[in-house]
Amino acid sequence: SGLVLVKNPHLDLMEEDILYHLDLGTKTHNLPAMFGDIKFVCVGGSPNRMRAFAQFMHRELGLAGDGEDVADICAGSDRYAMYRAGPVLSISHGMGIPSISIMLHELIKLLHHAKCRDVTIIRIGTSGGLGIEAGSVVITDTAVDSFFQPRFEQVVLDDVVVRSTELDKDLAEELLACSREIPDFPTLIGHTMCTYDFYEGQGRLDGALCSFSSEKKLEYLRRAYDAGVRNIEMESTAFAALCGLCGLKGESCRFHLL
Amino acid sequence: SGLVLVKNPHLDLMEEDILYHLDLGTKTHNLPAMFGDIKFVCVGGSPNRMRAFAQFMHRELGLAGDGEDVADICAGSDRYAMYRAGPVLSISHGMGIPSISIMLHELIKLLHHAKCRDVTIIRIGTSGGLGIEAGSVVITDTAVDSFFQPRFEQVVLDDVVVRSTELDKDLAEELLACSREIPDFPTLIGHTMCTYDFYEGQGRLDGALCSFSSEKKLEYLRRAYDAGVRNIEMESTAFAALCGLCGLKGESCRFHLL
Repeated sequence: SGLVLVKNPHLDLMEEDILYHLDLGTKTHNLPAMFGDIKFVCVGGSPNRMRAFAQFMHRELGLAGDGEDVADICAGSDRYAMYRAGPVLSISHGMGIPSISIMLHELIKLLHHAKCRDVTIIRIGTSGGLGIEAGSVVITDTAVDSFFQPRFEQVVLDDVVVRSTELDKDLAEELLACSREIPDFPTLIGHTMCTYDFYEGQGRLDGALCSFSSEKKLEYLRRAYDAGVRNIEMESTAFAALCGLCGLKGESCRFHLL
Repeated sequence: SGLVLVKNPHLDLMEEDILYHLDLGTKTHNLPAMFGDIKFVCVGGSPNRMRAFAQFMHRELGLAGDGEDVADICAGSDRYAMYRAGPVLSISHGMGIPSISIMLHELIKLLHHAKCRDVTIIRIGTSGGLGIEAGSVVITDTAVDSFFQPRFEQVVLDDVVVRSTELDKDLAEELLACSREIPDFPTLIGHTMCTYDFYEGQGRLDGALCSFSSEKKLEYLRRAYDAGVRNIEMESTAFAALCGLCGLKGESCRFHLL
């Protein structure tokens, strides 16, 4: 049916669903009228960047007005920012797995309540590249954890639930084909490694509060490269697992900053 | 000496340390002049609340002016917000362990570069209470994970480093004594449980994308209570571990919202 699957039978029995961190709800807002025609959702860490992306989409889609005054739909909350440009929704998710998890829970329930169909969700942003040219875009085929495994471990109360982190292969190929239409736009498909920390988790010799051996770090990064990892960030495994759980076509594209 | 310990020998050899997510750096800013007299750092999730807290401290300390126009020291970054009122710094950290970890790494290096002495750091905010009166404040003695263990597992590259999550007992008692000077201010000392997720991690029957048995949830929460847990949130283990690692006197106080 193309609808978003929510595997929680309690949800449709509830009188009201408050999407607390988005400052939206089923009683206070007409979600089908506000969001029913959404076809693409782009998510990224920074609120300012997601605003700039909505303005860019506004211009690309040739919508009326200059789009400069695009309004934050979640203005009542300072947790996340949300903008729309035609059928495209642009939302920030902050940094790290718990932060994107909260946003995705509420976003996916929003898409469910709004009865959206055939939604594609794309994670955009920056990442650290591994053995690739600076300025490259990595389209993730599979997100892996710090041990290079394609899994996301979600602790549910005290049960460890393991979920798959594969992303949509057709969508990845489609995005790669788009990139080839643009000159000088180095793009590749590869695995993306997701860590729980930016400094120690990614072994930043110059930034962490503890020290590392640079040999150990190099040896680890070589093993990551050999396992197919081409970039490193902090949200992809949770993103892939939650898209998979709810039947959303999802993809992660990260721009390799340095 | 009361100085902040940073156990990374590379740090003092670097020509410049850029605190990227705070938009501050050792070459672009005179950190000792800006922050050398800081004695208290209060951290919390929401940027708006940390701004309101700085304004409140401004009034409480009787500083000149009404404090309404307090400036965001990290205005050049949309990752975190930072305000000061006299010797008190007020900073937001977003939601979840990875987000507070990035901020604490850069904050602790800031305190180190600024040569601050005898700094006390207090985490303030809201949490879910467990078997306590609504409106109570829980002062954390020890942060525990979802298995009620006083530990924080930090994955450093692919090594799992286990750190202690005990907080400063004297500071907890001191804060409890302060609370007793205020009428109708229910306050207690207890364990705080830290999860990696708000919906599934805390077993929210009405909000998660998968379903739970309510019996399983009740049985789990009973075990948590018996283990000494009095509230649940998403940052305390990382906060306690990083404060401990760097010799900072740290405490976590959470207001039980519902």
